[in-house]
This record gives sequence, C-alpha cells and structure tokens, in this order.
Amino acid sequence: MGSSPATPRHFLRLQDLDTREVDDVLDLAGRLRQGVRGADLQGRTVGLLFFRGSLRTRSSFEVALHQLGGHALNLNAASDFWSLEERTGVVMDGEAPEHIRDAAEALSCYVDALAIRPAPAGRVWERDRLDTGIHAWAQHSKVPVINMESALWHPLQALADLMTLRDALGGDLRGRRLAITWTRSPAPGSPAGVNSMLLAALRAGMEVSLAHPRGFDLDSAVLDEARGEAQRSGVEFQQVDSMDTAVEGSHVVYARSWWPLSSYGNPTLTASRLARETGWCVDERTLALGEDARLMHPMPVRRNLEVTDEVLDGPRSLIIQQAGNRLHTQKGLLSLLLRPS
Amino acid sequence: MGSSPATPRHFLRLQDLDTREVDDVLDLAGRLRQGVRGADLQGRTVGLLFFRGSLRTRSSFEVALHQLGGHALNLNAASDFWSLEERTGVVMDGEAPEHIRDAAEALSCYVDALAIRPAPAGRVWERDRLDTGIHAWAQHSKVPVINMESALWHPLQALADLMTLRDALGGDLRGRRLAITWTRSPAPGSPAGVNSMLLAALRAGMEVSLAHPRGFDLDSAVLDEARGEAQRSGVEFQQVDSMDTAVEGSHVVYARSWWPLSSYGNPTLTASRLARETGWCVDERTLALGEDARLMHPMPVRRNLEVTDEVLDGPRSLIIQQAGNRLHTQKGLLSLLLRPS
Amino acid sequence: MGSSPATPRHFLRLQDLDTREVDDVLDLAGRLRQGVRGADLQGRTVGLLFFRGSLRTRSSFEVALHQLGGHALNLNAASDFWSLEERTGVVMDGEAPEHIRDAAEALSCYVDALAIRPAPAGRVWERDRLDTGIHAWAQHSKVPVINMESALWHPLQALADLMTLRDALGGDLRGRRLAITWTRSPAPGSPAGVNSMLLAALRAGMEVSLAHPRGFDLDSAVLDEARGEAQRSGVEFQQVDSMDTAVEGSHVVYARSWWPLSSYGNPTLTASRLARETGWCVDERTLALGEDARLMHPMPVRRNLEVTDEVLDGPRSLIIQQAGNRLHTQKGLLSLLLRPS
Repeated sequence: MGSSPATPRHFLRLQDLDTREVDDVLDLAGRLRQGVRGADLQGRTVGLLFFRGSLRTRSSFEVALHQLGGHALNLNAASDFWSLEERTGVVMDGEAPEHIRDAAEALSCYVDALAIRPAPAGRVWERDRLDTGIHAWAQHSKVPVINMESALWHPLQALADLMTLRDALGGDLRGRRLAITWTRSPAPGSPAGVNSMLLAALRAGMEVSLAHPRGFDLDSAVLDEARGEAQRSGVEFQQVDSMDTAVEGSHVVYARSWWPLSSYGNPTLTASRLARETGWCVDERTLALGEDARLMHPMPVRRNLEVTDEVLDGPRSLIIQQAGNRLHTQKGLLSLLLRPS
Repeated sequence: MGSSPATPRHFLRLQDLDTREVDDVLDLAGRLRQGVRGADLQGRTVGLLFFRGSLRTRSSFEVALHQLGGHALNLNAASDFWSLEERTGVVMDGEAPEHIRDAAEALSCYVDALAIRPAPAGRVWERDRLDTGIHAWAQHSKVPVINMESALWHPLQALADLMTLRDALGGDLRGRRLAITWTRSPAPGSPAGVNSMLLAALRAGMEVSLAHPRGFDLDSAVLDEARGEAQRSGVEFQQVDSMDTAVEGSHVVYARSWWPLSSYGNPTLTASRLARETGWCVDERTLALGEDARLMHPMPVRRNLEVTDEVLDGPRSLIIQQAGNRLHTQKGLLSLLLRPS
Repeated sequence: MGSSPATPRHFLRLQDLDTREVDDVLDLAGRLRQGVRGADLQGRTVGLLFFRGSLRTRSSFEVALHQLGGHALNLNAASDFWSLEERTGVVMDGEAPEHIRDAAEALSCYVDALAIRPAPAGRVWERDRLDTGIHAWAQHSKVPVINMESALWHPLQALADLMTLRDALGGDLRGRRLAITWTRSPAPGSPAGVNSMLLAALRAGMEVSLAHPRGFDLDSAVLDEARGEAQRSGVEFQQVDSMDTAVEGSHVVYARSWWPLSSYGNPTLTASRLARETGWCVDERTLALGEDARLMHPMPVRRNLEVTDEVLDGPRSLIIQQAGNRLHTQKGLLSLLLRPS
C-alpha cells in the first residue's frame, strides 16, 4: 500500500536497532522458528533490489515474506531496468537515465519497504566506504530501507549470526570468546559481514580476537568503533596476526575471507598479496585449540581452502544453522519494521 | 486458470476502451486508492513478458496483482527464455526456435491475461510502427493481451496520466489546456507515451499544444488521428516549434524526450540532430508562462537536462502522483478485464 | 517451512514413481482440470533453479504453485547468483565460490522442494549422461528434488504427455501404437524428453516405433532400458530409419528433433551431419499413413521444418493440450510430493 509515515524506520546497520530491539527480533525469531505466527503481511510488498548477485539473502527474504502472507517484488538491476544516478544536483547527461531519488519515490508508492543490495563501484575504498548508494535510497524513500549488504555493513547476516551464537552458547553471550579469522580464497569477498559481526559481538559483551595477515586490516573507522564498543561493554578486543592465536581458548570461530582494503580496486596488487599467504584454513587441528569451539561461516565458503570438509560437515559446524536463521530473523525484523504504526 | 472466452478483450491502445469504460476504470481507481477492495483475483495469474527493461510498469503491475489477491508471472525474454518468430507461414530455419503463436497458445493455458512489453527492432520506423509483435500476441492469445508499451502506444501510462490530470484539474478536463513539450536528452526514449497522452487528452476535450524542434515530428498517422480527435471534441490542437509558445497559458505542461523518427535506426544522424538542439529544458521561468501550470513527466527523467531539480521537486510537480496512479489505474483495469464474464 | 523428512522423496525420472503412483498423479490431474481443489500449499515454497532457459516449465510450474496456494521462488543461476561446484572433496580454488552441497542444505532451510533445470556442460556425452549435477542436488538436499530436464530425463514432460495420450486414446494405452520420430532442425534440442516419453510409453504398454536418421541413435543405456520395458510389458519396440515406416499404422506420432550423441560437443561435425539430412518433416501426407493418427510435439517446435503449419494448426494436433497438461500434472505431482507426511 506504500504507507508513508513521516520518517520511515530504516535498517542500514545493526546499530539502527538498540539492544532491546535486537533482543525483541531474536526472541520473536525463536518463536517463529517454533511455529508461532508472525505479523500478517497480507497485501503488503517489499521490493528487493539487487545490484549484485545473491542466493541466501534473496531466497530467505522472499520466503520470509511469503510465510508472513506478504509478497516480494524481486528486481535485478542488471536485467530488469537500468543504472541510476545517485549524486545530487548534477546535470544528468551521462549514462544513467534515472535518479535514485525518482526511483525511490516512485517505488515508495508501490511497496511497504525497500531492501537494497547495492553494488559498490569497486575502485576507491575511501569512496565506497561512504555507502552513498544505500544512503541515497534511505534519504529519498518514503518507506523503510533495509540494507541487504553494502560496502561496509551486512546487518541481516549479523542478526542471523547473533541468533546462532545464542543457540550454540546459551542465551547470554557476555564473556564468551569469539575468534574472527580471515581465511584464504582466490576471490575474497567483502568484509561487510565481518564488520557487522564484530560490532554485534562486542555490543553483546563477547571477548573478540580478530586474526588476519598483515595488510588485511579492516576499515580503520570500523576498528575505532569496535574499540569503543569493547570499552562500553568492558570486554577485550584484540587483533593478532595468527589464526591459532585467535582461536586459542575461543568458544566460537568465525571464518571468512575478505579482500585487502589497502589494495582495493587494484586486482594485480591484491593478487600478489593473496599469493604471499598460505595456510589460513580452518581445520580440525585449529578448532581443537578452542574451548569446545564451534565453527561459523556466513557462506559462500570455499571448501578445503577456507575451511576443511571435515570441519564444515562435522558436528561442530554451525553454518547451516546460520543459513536457516536468516529466514527466522528476517521474519522477526519484518514483523518489527512493518507492524501497523 | 486460463479461462478462454471466445474473443478475449485486449487492451493494446487506450482507444480499445470507450470513454465510458475509461471513466469506469478511473472512477474505480479512485475508490481503490481510498482503500476500497477491487476484484478478487485469488488463484489468477497475469503473465508479464518483458522484451525490454522496465521499473515502474513491472513494479506497479506486479504489486497491483498482489493487492488484488492474484499473481504476476514475471518473464524476461532476455534471461528467461529465447527469441520468438512472429511472421506467419515461414520455414523456421532462422535463429528463433519458437513461434509467438505457440508461445501465446501455451501460455494461454496457464494465465488469465498476458501483458507484453515488446522490443521493436529499432531499425526501420515504417516497420516498427506496425507493432506486429504485440498484434501477433493478440492474434494468437486465448486470454486478454495488455500492451505494456509498444513502438506506438503506452496506454497504461495514459490511464495513470488521465487520472493525474483529473486529480490536478478537477474531474472535467474539457477546455483545460495541455502543453506537450519535447525535452532534451542524450538518449531520448520512445514517443509511445506521448502518442497515447496526446490522443487521450484530445478525446477528453483538452486543448493541446505540441512543441518540439524541427525534425522531431510524431508519427504522421498519429498526428492525423489527433486532428480527428480534436475535431470530434471541438477543441484546438496546435503544433509549435517553441516550448515557450506551447506553455503559454497552459494548465499542465507534459514534458518528455523522444527520438527523431526521421533518423530512426540511424544513431549517427540522430546524434547530430540532438547536438544541434539546446534549451528545451523545463525550468521555473518556463512554468511561469503557464496559467498556474503543473508539471507532468512519465519518468525516467534526466534531471537538469529535461526538467530542473527546482521544478521536479517543487510544489507544482505531479511526477510522483503519476507514478503512484500507475498502481491504482492498473488495479482498476485488471478489475475490468478479468471480471468473471 | 523447510520440513526435513529423513529421506526426501525425489523425482528425478519418471520411474521414481511406480505405475500406481503415476496413475494417481494423472487421475488427480484430471480432477484438478475439472476444477477440483488440490493440496493446500499455503505458506509453502518450491525453489525453481534454472541453469538454462525455460518458458513452459517455468510458467506452468509457477502457476501450478500459485493455484495451489503456494509460492515459487524463481532463481536464474546466470543472473541471480553464481556457479556451483559439484565435485566432492576438491580444494575449491577454481571459479565456483560455492559448493552445491552448501547451496542445497541452505536452500533446504527455506523451501519445501527444489526443482532444478541443470545445464549440462555440453562437451562430453559420457560425462553429461551421468547427470551428476542433479544427483548432487538430490544427495545434499533435505527436501524433495524435482528434475526440470537434465541431460538424460524430462519426467515432467512425460507426465503431461501421458495425460495427453490418455485423453486422446482413452484411458488404457495398452496395445496402442506410438511412433516417435526425429525431425529436422538447425539447432536440435536434447533427447531427454524423448528418452522419458519412450520409457513411459513402453511401461504403459504401448507398441513403439522409433525413427531417426543413421547417427542419431539415442543413448545406448536408454535403449537397453527401453528393450527391458518392452519385454516386461510384452510389447514391441522397433527402431527404423524412416519416418514413414514408423508412422505407418500408428495412433500417435510424437515428433521432436535431437542432436546426434555421436558428435556431442562437436558443433562442426554435428552441423555436417545435420546438413546431410533432408525431409524428416511431419506433414499431412505423413500423418495420413497412421491410423487416425494424432500429432504430438513437446515444443518449442520449428514450424514448416519439423512439422508443417497445416498439421500443427489442424484438428489432429495435440500440442496445445500437451502444454496445458503440464499445469495439471504438475499440480498433481506437487500434491503427491508435498502432502503432509
């Protein structure tokens, strides 16, 4: 119906929900998983706009909507329409025939929320890290905008990961130890999911060890924010340059490959950096360094390169639970964001 | 269910509805916008076949169907299936592995209507203007065919535009003055929407001024038909070569860029024609020449080239209402076309 | 809901249903066509994964789900996500960033069944004929996997074809004569549908004549299986090298072009083989050789090359019924596979 409250409630990063709201979403997700009915979204539509590929997010989001009685309007920018201008005030004599402002306002007439997976340009990190695309959508949309993974954040993944951590470690995460470790891949992905997980875990009171090779540091502002969260939570956040060191004594190992920001947009330099790294694969020996440690990975995962088959398919792997919780947490989130005001 | 009345009721151009039917659709659209329930399309499906990109049409049509309880079967020719032959009686030894006849008859078994956005070949206007693609669909389909913008007509846009004109000017459009003006763009679109608007406005009894640079004339048969409509309605239809002249004294300015038909299929000549034009941008000064004039544009719009930001985002702009009315008028139309016979 | 029975009931080839189950599906399909309600699939989703194009299968499957109250999650591998690894135990340092195992297990959390149209590599028949892709999906999925046409089988087409044969010949097919004939096309398709039809007809007790030019033999294991089915049914299965011979005395002529397996993956050799063939077009003269014979073809069909317009559009053609029965049989199959256990 395109209900247009004065200020739509966006979900661009996990911190857009306060800790009580996160608890509410996770609690509701748990009840939904048990078969409780969620919000009734009959006649309501969420537009899903993909400027990049997606398997889990696309599928779990569309199914979440259907199970709540609503509808997903699936739009692939590449095949369904055209490029969009995001800069304000320019003379639009370039390639893009339409401005995000007009697309956002028009779509707001049709849908009850817009979920966006933008495609960062991939050339200059200092520009992409501003997430201008999704902020332009949020600025002009009359309905809530949900981030389905921007350059900097992947809050939907973080919600599912938090639920999985609670499932595995018991409800209270305070004082539990999380190792986040870089893994090797010929085509690493975005650090967005790791950024979101890092801040979510620290806010939940977990002790976090972050391991990666030299040159693969996360965005410095994200690290500053992580240190702030750690301080507020009174927990330790340490960075190390060895997977083993990070995993030692941890309860959960969160594995994920990401590209080096320092050579962002430079494939040659990135390839040479990656070529220098060996190891950085989570195997049974690594996992045994933890304290009864479980393995998480947001997928897609390159088997026997990032993590061994033995670990991924073993009893300590939580990767399928993570994927499954995407559905339940997104149903919880939609119930919160789209409830009648 | 693929209900197959003997002669399906197609909607290929606005004139396929008589004026009372247009009134019915617009009246129903108004009530639907107020929250009245439309036809119940539960268990019914409309196939949307896109041979070209679409944002508003795709989105508003799919949401219209969902809000009425029905379902949109979304098919992108480019990515979902293959090219189709439209000529009758040929030996099919070319590229297309399937004939529109067979695709239309097969799909008629599954859906209750077919909405088509064909892709004109873009080489010879005298051929494309025949709209043979959509006519082949209409000839062979057992269910109503709806034109989602062919080479010559865009009747769905015209319905939304008529509703917007009524909203803005009061119910009766007789004697109100409409300026349709060409605007500058490096990649002009099809004149189909303007063709439909022109005839719709004249049939509704509006006085119309049409402005464009020399060499950008609309299709001559469309112009003939426009003169006929003007005569029947007893109103004036004039063509001028200056935006200011057209806008002077008008109540609504309808802006839109279109390519020169005289160099259709010749990008070099078209580019040189476009390069010669300057101006042709609607700004506050232009709009002030009208009589309390409002601005319409069917979008996508190139900001600050076709129309200035100031006008588009100002209080006289109707572009978002136009987009919104796509939803309501299409729900009205579907209610009319798919009502149980 | 992703209900996960211990061993999901897959439908990879027609023989995965015993003859009584096929009867059940066809009987239910007949009642569904009469307007009887099928299973209630409210809140349930089937993921449709297309690694190749599709028109009838995609459309009829999605509409079948909607008419039963359920939902189709439509995924195009080419545009929506990425390539998938299917080999077990490899170090995933190649192009594919994800393993079918992980995709299958993750999607199993969201959907109630997975329907797959894999894309055989198209280079080595001995490899493609193993249908490793769809078997990998079946191995790892926690929900039923439905084959939407693999290299070797197209069981959904066979279900619709069986229903059409029953409609045309009366309920009992025993002893009725089917001619399956190769037809000429510049771009022949897969023999998968013909393989499935051949075995289905023999199991149903039909006498089958199979005609094709030399060098266009079906897969030898399929032919072995066909001979076994013929023996079990006590009917004749003969192979001939002339369309006329096959059609003589038959009640139904099933036409379809397929590529020569002996030059599979070798376009040059295939083209030269095809160039040598002339004729192999079903026309009125051919059809008159049968016994009141009807024409079937699974489409897409190249008109006036495979079959003449006169036959396709004449009273003896069953091609539209075949297409229509795709909807009804798939609703029947879904009702069987997704019934609450």
